[in-house]
Amino acid sequence: MNGYRDLRVALLGCGSVGAQVARLILDHGDELAARIGAHLQLTGIAVRDIDAPRDVELPRELFTTDAEQLVLGADVVVELMGGIEPARSLILRAIEGGADVVTANKALIAAHGPELSEAAEQVGAQLSYEAAVAGAIPIIRPLRESLAGDHVNRVLGIVNGSTNYILDRMDRFGDSAEDAMRVAAELGYLEADPTLDVEGYDAAQKATILARIAFHTEVPVDSVYREGITQVTLAQVEAAKHAGYVIKLLAIAERLTAADGTEGVSARVYPALISRDHPLAAVHGGKNAVFVEAEAAGELMFYGAGAGGIETASAVLGDLVSAARRHVVGGPGIPGSAHADLPILPIGEVTTSYQIMLEVRDEAGVLATIAGILAQHGVSASSVEQSVPEDSQGTAALIIGTHRAREADLAATVDELRDSGAVTAVTSVLRLEGNA
Amino acid sequence: MNGYRDLRVALLGCGSVGAQVARLILDHGDELAARIGAHLQLTGIAVRDIDAPRDVELPRELFTTDAEQLVLGADVVVELMGGIEPARSLILRAIEGGADVVTANKALIAAHGPELSEAAEQVGAQLSYEAAVAGAIPIIRPLRESLAGDHVNRVLGIVNGSTNYILDRMDRFGDSAEDAMRVAAELGYLEADPTLDVEGYDAAQKATILARIAFHTEVPVDSVYREGITQVTLAQVEAAKHAGYVIKLLAIAERLTAADGTEGVSARVYPALISRDHPLAAVHGGKNAVFVEAEAAGELMFYGAGAGGIETASAVLGDLVSAARRHVVGGPGIPGSAHADLPILPIGEVTTSYQIMLEVRDEAGVLATIAGILAQHGVSASSVEQSVPEDSQGTAALIIGTHRAREADLAATVDELRDSGAVTAVTSVLRLEGNA
Repeated sequence: MNGYRDLRVALLGCGSVGAQVARLILDHGDELAARIGAHLQLTGIAVRDIDAPRDVELPRELFTTDAEQLVLGADVVVELMGGIEPARSLILRAIEGGADVVTANKALIAAHGPELSEAAEQVGAQLSYEAAVAGAIPIIRPLRESLAGDHVNRVLGIVNGSTNYILDRMDRFGDSAEDAMRVAAELGYLEADPTLDVEGYDAAQKATILARIAFHTEVPVDSVYREGITQVTLAQVEAAKHAGYVIKLLAIAERLTAADGTEGVSARVYPALISRDHPLAAVHGGKNAVFVEAEAAGELMFYGAGAGGIETASAVLGDLVSAARRHVVGGPGIPGSAHADLPILPIGEVTTSYQIMLEVRDEAGVLATIAGILAQHGVSASSVEQSVPEDSQGTAALIIGTHRAREADLAATVDELRDSGAVTAVTSVLRLEGNA
Repeated sequence: MNGYRDLRVALLGCGSVGAQVARLILDHGDELAARIGAHLQLTGIAVRDIDAPRDVELPRELFTTDAEQLVLGADVVVELMGGIEPARSLILRAIEGGADVVTANKALIAAHGPELSEAAEQVGAQLSYEAAVAGAIPIIRPLRESLAGDHVNRVLGIVNGSTNYILDRMDRFGDSAEDAMRVAAELGYLEADPTLDVEGYDAAQKATILARIAFHTEVPVDSVYREGITQVTLAQVEAAKHAGYVIKLLAIAERLTAADGTEGVSARVYPALISRDHPLAAVHGGKNAVFVEAEAAGELMFYGAGAGGIETASAVLGDLVSAARRHVVGGPGIPGSAHADLPILPIGEVTTSYQIMLEVRDEAGVLATIAGILAQHGVSASSVEQSVPEDSQGTAALIIGTHRAREADLAATVDELRDSGAVTAVTSVLRLEGNA
């Protein structure tokens, strides 16, 4: 394909993340090849049951139940089975075979990360697990690489979407803990057994991984102090709100000095108060965020989706592309960086909404004239608000919100409004961004 | 030093960023060597005037005015001079000599990035410029690497701290545009000639770089549509506030389809309305943030300090460590990942503030008893709030905020309060995180 060599990718597991990873590899093959300088050949997908239902339709011939066979001869193995075994053994086997490994398995990395990293280091293979913490959010790579020359002092993470959803409902809608749990369960935020989430075990696994990377220190998961959210009451949430705080379940990794002067590290998980001015306070619903305090960089925050099949697949693909690039011998770091070569479109082609503020004659028929000008350019109003200021001398103020339209049409509309006899002044024209 | 080989680092420029980079290389030498697997040897700092005042005291013998000589034989060249020439020629010379190059020079990367990247690609050298956009915030590496398997649709950036500071003052304190400008100038947020900032030229350079990386497409800086903030009035800011919006100067890179069906890219800078619910709306003062919408990952945001000598130095160091690692032949990706090997401290050693809610007897002397218990454990109260509920049966509610103290002392305090005759119930104990 396009003269690219093939890189053999073995996928272990085909749950909600695995199915999306397979789909992205298959659907975006050409684009990925251009970015990597090699073609990702999906050699197979190891599953327990070939006939199980999947989120995505995939070629049946890709499936196999023989994971051990599949990892042999792979250039990159992507492990998305979850759990400790057989994932651990398969990854070790893949590394022994010289493959790079990408995994999203937080339980495995929390429990056996150092063992697996060491095995990879010894043969010069790469083990990456961006998706193991905070789903789609790039946090492992920034901590490991972007902050590699800095000194991290503290990491505060909202790394469990289910518990954040529950606490956020209590804070924003005044739900009792029981009601919020019930809604979270109904929406699929909670597992059948919610213990891993609500007792903080999931967050503790992520705290281990974050602390290890931030402080270059082995932090066993059973050294993480842990309290879940089951004791948090609506009364506490409301008292916190009254005092200017919000309660969040935080995974914390912190450099600190003990009473006897020992320099050390603390990793812990508990529900804590955070000032409503703090960037973490604005992390709502099932979102995740990791706030990092470093000596030189100061305060950083990384925000996004902490879970979800397609979102997590994005992080897996990033690791996969990075691993694949290492195999492109003699290739540059970022091959074909301008390979897409899309045309640059002029501002007139942009579509946004507008907010237009006008000073208009306070007369009958003015609104109809203005509505006619909008319609003529294919621009539709989403809201119109009129007010007559006290010092008005026969004029009124009009605020028009528009639906999305092409900039060229919007600009022509504004020009014609300005020239219209109905309008005495265009006082403000602003675009609205950040909406869907 | 510890058996590590030396890597020769040449530094060009010693302004506020350069001086901090030099300091970090010199002060953190052992720690950086452990992370890299090689020792960074700062071979010299090229400056125009050796006797000029610096932010940091540095060994005089490091300084040279002969930049051309300095880049010869360097393994990594760090360019922090700014401007187009001689920075461009020196970087090309460094690349020809086989050095990797790290730069924070946004004007140069915006104008000549593709030329420099191509030169680096041809000799297998690495050109990195994390610090060129949004200072300390890791955004280039996440866009290039973490999202390498995804499809970016839109990037919205608050990438100019000065203009964000001005607009934020207008929004939060009701300053007029003139007053906000004056304060920004007084605080050093604005250059003597503020045109680059307030007319959006600085943001346009960053929009070019972001669009190029997000869309793998060459986006010349003069193709960026640009409006600054000089036309934004307090009346507009207040009307926006009233309607649930905030005005931010945004650098936007967007994939879009033209009216004739052409798929293309738009890069633009203008002040726009953003819903106050949007994560970008919470970016206050001089902070920067980049909001990314990707097909698989969904919405991500990267937040932090967009400028400042020490903060920007963090991003430069991250690039430098990454470049240096490539020189450690046969070395693993992340050498000595657990090299720091700090002790894990128990929860009792953690220091936080507490918020304690008590139900107490509504009697004389109760407050004194409670204050005595706190004092006995060395815990000092920052606030005490008492209320007598209507249905009280001889009890009152007390909310105590504490200053930072050791967890062990706080826990002992709570235990003793619980056992005290003055306290009928401990209704809530929460830690406060995220404060200094």
